[in-house]
Amino acid sequence: MSVDTIRPVTWQDNMLVLMDQRYLPHQEINFICKTSEDAITAIREMVVRGAPAIGVTAAFGSVLAARESWSKLGGNWKRAVEPLLQDLSLARPTAINLIWAIDQMRLEIKSCPDEQNPESALLSRAMQIMNEDIASNHKMGELGAALIKEPCSVLTHCNAGALATAGYGTALGVIRSAYAAGKIEQVYADETRPWLQGARLTAWEMVKEGIPVSLLADGAASWLMKKGKVSWVIVGSDRIAANGDVANKIGTYAIAIAARYHGIGFMVVAPTTTIDMAVENGDFIPIEERNPDELLQIAGTDSAASGSDAWNPVFDVTPAALVDALVTEKGVILKPDKQKIHDLMSS
Amino acid sequence: MSVDTIRPVTWQDNMLVLMDQRYLPHQEINFICKTSEDAITAIREMVVRGAPAIGVTAAFGSVLAARESWSKLGGNWKRAVEPLLQDLSLARPTAINLIWAIDQMRLEIKSCPDEQNPESALLSRAMQIMNEDIASNHKMGELGAALIKEPCSVLTHCNAGALATAGYGTALGVIRSAYAAGKIEQVYADETRPWLQGARLTAWEMVKEGIPVSLLADGAASWLMKKGKVSWVIVGSDRIAANGDVANKIGTYAIAIAARYHGIGFMVVAPTTTIDMAVENGDFIPIEERNPDELLQIAGTDSAASGSDAWNPVFDVTPAALVDALVTEKGVILKPDKQKIHDLMSS
Repeated sequence: MSVDTIRPVTWQDNMLVLMDQRYLPHQEINFICKTSEDAITAIREMVVRGAPAIGVTAAFGSVLAARESWSKLGGNWKRAVEPLLQDLSLARPTAINLIWAIDQMRLEIKSCPDEQNPESALLSRAMQIMNEDIASNHKMGELGAALIKEPCSVLTHCNAGALATAGYGTALGVIRSAYAAGKIEQVYADETRPWLQGARLTAWEMVKEGIPVSLLADGAASWLMKKGKVSWVIVGSDRIAANGDVANKIGTYAIAIAARYHGIGFMVVAPTTTIDMAVENGDFIPIEERNPDELLQIAGTDSAASGSDAWNPVFDVTPAALVDALVTEKGVILKPDKQKIHDLMSS
Repeated sequence: MSVDTIRPVTWQDNMLVLMDQRYLPHQEINFICKTSEDAITAIREMVVRGAPAIGVTAAFGSVLAARESWSKLGGNWKRAVEPLLQDLSLARPTAINLIWAIDQMRLEIKSCPDEQNPESALLSRAMQIMNEDIASNHKMGELGAALIKEPCSVLTHCNAGALATAGYGTALGVIRSAYAAGKIEQVYADETRPWLQGARLTAWEMVKEGIPVSLLADGAASWLMKKGKVSWVIVGSDRIAANGDVANKIGTYAIAIAARYHGIGFMVVAPTTTIDMAVENGDFIPIEERNPDELLQIAGTDSAASGSDAWNPVFDVTPAALVDALVTEKGVILKPDKQKIHDLMSS
């Protein structure tokens, strides 16, 4: 039984190939990036989403940026590549993995000679970032599953799955590993308005892997806990501050409050590339607000009364104090705080 | 400036006329009930919804049931009417106002002579129930608005508005009165999945009355509180137990937990007809589960991954301990409990 069949970001025929997540679950269509501009579009328009997947996409996007610069300027390619990387880094504001991956590529660029086509060296670094992400997810899967002591049902929010990473997933990686170990009876997935990542992406992944999944309205999560249906909440993250505050999809904070109120474990699963030591606490994490139309329309037609406005922040911040376990590829932190995160990152 | 322009349940030309809320906000279409069966359909299919509006509809539905029985059996009409009322009382399970209104009509039926067409007597009682509902809402509007000490913004969930009553609304009645008194700067309305009562109905009412309204995803309500944007949560109820536990639209419980976590007032506005003294606490309130398709589809097309299941309870129960104020037409109870509710109902 394999529970690891999905690869949303790949490099094929010298191009970056993304599963276009705007069309899931109904159509499996690839979005081909031939230029760094294509990669920016893919990130901005949510062809690809999820912090680690955005990071891996940006790594390959940097390869495309270098190719364009070399073909235009040859030996002066480094002068042209930086503005492209700068544009790429601004494609979306909240996921820190985007900036992390580009910084990794910048280091690699620095070590490339001026007078040689950099593509193969940079491609090799991007592939490494991709493969490390998948390996991280498997490691976190094991570590997180070990926290689940006996068979139970769990709740997840948004999609922190294979589709949000290079493969296997963060929160859904833990769920995959725990399911394979016989520890998960049922996955409950918030539908996750406004973009419906839960209904469209998490449910799709779970059905594909044969893991039983039941959707619920975001507002029903607290009632699910009250009814005793779940023992753990397991989510991913888009950026974690140095004190352990967790930015994640809007709605996560509400679930964390409710989990604490009901005495249910709240687990955050994210690679250390998601931890931003430069940000002291959650107040300083930029929170993206997207177009109100995401709320005023459904499936392209107006759903709300005309003349009404909407407030559409797409992330929120859960304070570290509400997090019971932070699972990274370097290890698990129970009740994360500034000191424990510092120790983990220095280890 | 009038903020009281909407009447969703009326009696016209000897028929019950309902605003068909399935078509709002895009089309204002009436649903005509010529028979008690039509009234059952209207309640079951959510042409009309909201506990007080369901009650008023059932009162007029009882008039139609009596008319049918008299026309079929003349002097034996009382034998035929009871099974029709029984069917009517089963149209939906959670709103206690449905049963309350039918019981009121049963009392009136009891006092009607066998040998006389009962329609005018029963119609007069139904009109009284309707008018008392509107008067109650105005009274609650005043009482609830008085709890709001200074201009602020508020959050509401679902639609406890004119459309959920005979007119003016419960929670939105308080908001109307407080707005008219210059105490409300901005109304935030949860969109309220799966049926989108917030986006479709509450926003429509607010726009119609010229009250500024901004929609948000249900999952964003806690973040709204964290950001300091609202000072009160104001909601209605479908049934209140004798100890003050409050059944209301799914998602209400989550907001109540978050309001307490943030120290924000949580106000429930409901007429005493919503209080069910026969139900000891919230554990005994029947919670309707509706078709999973309400979650698996949006606007009639599949939104979720095919093969996924859904859990669709459409109400939840907020424990009395999380309620700061219960506003009824008989008065306000702060921190409701069994004794205070008993005293109110006996007064």
